[in-house]
Amino acid sequence: MSNVIVAQSGGPTVAINASLVGVLAGARKCSEYDKVYGSVHGIEGVFEENFLDLTDVYTENSPEENMIFSTPSSYLGSCRYKLPHFNDDPETYKKLFNIFDKYDVGAFFYIGGNDSMDTIMKLAEYGKQIGSTIRFGGVPKTVDNDLMDTDHTPGFGSAAKFIATTMLEIAHDTSVYQADTVTIVEIMGRDAGWLTASAALARNSYSSLPQLIYLPEVAFDKDEFIGSIKEILKKTNNILVAISEGIHDADGNYLSASSKAEDKFGHAQLSGTGKVLESLVKAELGIKCRSIELSLPQRCAAHISSLTDLREAAELGEKAVEFAAQGNTGYMSSIIRKPGADYSCEIGMADLTKVANQEKKIPREWINEAGNDVTSELIDYLKPLIQGETNVKWENGLPVYKEIKHLTES
Amino acid sequence: MSNVIVAQSGGPTVAINASLVGVLAGARKCSEYDKVYGSVHGIEGVFEENFLDLTDVYTENSPEENMIFSTPSSYLGSCRYKLPHFNDDPETYKKLFNIFDKYDVGAFFYIGGNDSMDTIMKLAEYGKQIGSTIRFGGVPKTVDNDLMDTDHTPGFGSAAKFIATTMLEIAHDTSVYQADTVTIVEIMGRDAGWLTASAALARNSYSSLPQLIYLPEVAFDKDEFIGSIKEILKKTNNILVAISEGIHDADGNYLSASSKAEDKFGHAQLSGTGKVLESLVKAELGIKCRSIELSLPQRCAAHISSLTDLREAAELGEKAVEFAAQGNTGYMSSIIRKPGADYSCEIGMADLTKVANQEKKIPREWINEAGNDVTSELIDYLKPLIQGETNVKWENGLPVYKEIKHLTES
Repeated sequence: MSNVIVAQSGGPTVAINASLVGVLAGARKCSEYDKVYGSVHGIEGVFEENFLDLTDVYTENSPEENMIFSTPSSYLGSCRYKLPHFNDDPETYKKLFNIFDKYDVGAFFYIGGNDSMDTIMKLAEYGKQIGSTIRFGGVPKTVDNDLMDTDHTPGFGSAAKFIATTMLEIAHDTSVYQADTVTIVEIMGRDAGWLTASAALARNSYSSLPQLIYLPEVAFDKDEFIGSIKEILKKTNNILVAISEGIHDADGNYLSASSKAEDKFGHAQLSGTGKVLESLVKAELGIKCRSIELSLPQRCAAHISSLTDLREAAELGEKAVEFAAQGNTGYMSSIIRKPGADYSCEIGMADLTKVANQEKKIPREWINEAGNDVTSELIDYLKPLIQGETNVKWENGLPVYKEIKHLTES
Repeated sequence: MSNVIVAQSGGPTVAINASLVGVLAGARKCSEYDKVYGSVHGIEGVFEENFLDLTDVYTENSPEENMIFSTPSSYLGSCRYKLPHFNDDPETYKKLFNIFDKYDVGAFFYIGGNDSMDTIMKLAEYGKQIGSTIRFGGVPKTVDNDLMDTDHTPGFGSAAKFIATTMLEIAHDTSVYQADTVTIVEIMGRDAGWLTASAALARNSYSSLPQLIYLPEVAFDKDEFIGSIKEILKKTNNILVAISEGIHDADGNYLSASSKAEDKFGHAQLSGTGKVLESLVKAELGIKCRSIELSLPQRCAAHISSLTDLREAAELGEKAVEFAAQGNTGYMSSIIRKPGADYSCEIGMADLTKVANQEKKIPREWINEAGNDVTSELIDYLKPLIQGETNVKWENGLPVYKEIKHLTES
């Protein structure tokens, strides 16, 4: 028997802890593995030997019974450390593998995005080269849904559910007045528009809002934008627009980055994309316009997480351990959607060379010709991912989450 | 028997429709009243005779069984119409009362804030002057909790629950890195800090975030602000700050309004208060700082509304009808908190001269001496208002609300 180290990296999501519980559940099932160490602050915690013993943290019969399952953010903390290549810096690898040996580690699991998968790929390669038996497995996570070789990524479905729900509620809110109004909602996603596209899920039998959706996959044209708003104003006075923070013009200039704003203290100010378009609408059309940035709650609103998302996240963690126990190394557990009208998935192993340092964007054919909306194919792809509500407990009017004190107290 | 008109006004909230259902429930109970007309877009709908027949919309046994109860925003739409005084414009009043007579109206109920209560006061006074038997009752609503002569206002408790939950989730999210970080959350409330104060409810056994709370009731001093952050950084790397959008310096200058920012198209840009402070922290301390504006979701996130809030909202509507049937006019139904450790309330009638055009601010003694936090008395006042979760139905991954099509289709 050997021990396991698990760590989390990159920006937190609502599902990254469900994957952690999945790893714990997987390790308990596998007779190959004994103790589970949680490395605090990603792989940096390994260098510092900053481990939490998680062996007895999971005592339930299924991951979703454990409180960590539905707790937002990274229970083990995070880091932004980029592991150098072993040809450039063999000492770093020697140090890491010495620590692995010291703790009798048989498998290391990294829950993260494409940078974390790059880490797993390098560690597995180095391990093979030196004849190590340590297994290295990745577990995908990113709200942006931009990882290759997996149908979608944990964290995304919950963020999409938050965005769709919030857009529906904003559609209600903005419907009350008779004056012409444009409301612009800025959504996360610098290079990939998946999160912004999920705003389309807010449409229902009585509301076609948002009427316009702008993604970074298509060049933004302000004349088309103003023209489209004028056109819609002929039919209704209440317009809701979803935009990616990363929309840019045909030359690749971000709308936000090119702002020359300065604030009252004379500091350069980076206006958000929504603010830039808000000013544009007011100046060109002279009508009421408001912009809203959904910001951090998109990735941490665990009280409204998607049960489908969290269950898949846990399963990806559990399977990653199973794959390691079967002798695999240098993989990422990944979601394979089965063909057919009814949504179902199985868990496979992705090829890390396809995942590491790559980004999956929305295919052009899933965006309408005008570049201001998504197609029904994209909506069909997104819909299953927001299904189901997580059974968050409430006490004293607030959701009950697992404590994070070990991260913030020094 | 006579008929009833009900209307909604001002900014929408999550509870304003619960009050509407309360009025419907009250009218059904009272043998004095027959039909209930919903005036679309506030009192403007009366001038236009734009009425929805709501008589049969409420068929349930209790308001919370009706789908409108938990639907965000104003089901009947809203307006920002300020009724002139009858001495200045008697024709407007004659027109209104002619329409009331035409529809055989015995009572008019206005759900709204202090402007709406001004309307109710004027209509009741004019009615008395001309010897009309029509009763005029107000039902309070405002997320800002700034109405006088009521312990608190419907809509506020739900917004406070959203804010406290979101602050807790952001506290989780921001705890993951080891670098010094300041996160500033800008909360609604131009002149009264009730909503911002409710951020304190996010604190629990494992988290003291937000560590700083700035309200418009106390002059903001940027040196104190920077000094407090430096002090807290000695103990922890993760700082969360709640600020009212309306904080201002000792001379009354809003931080936001004095921004001189311009965007890339050369339009003047009003930086939010949060953005201004974000720039200040970066410039003065050189550390990572992010600002977040909670914006519209504060008043429309019905999926997380407070059951206490919605139930009280319905009861205020129901009682307003009962008071009218008893012969009262020119009042606002209001919440009277009973003394004692256990929270309980009764519904009374507020004096409109105390309510109309007034604003209730946080008493100075409920803010700490340094002006950067609230006292335990304020927390005790707030806590009961966010208790209980509303049983929102979910379908296809989204909350199910009552349709708003009649407002947006022309």
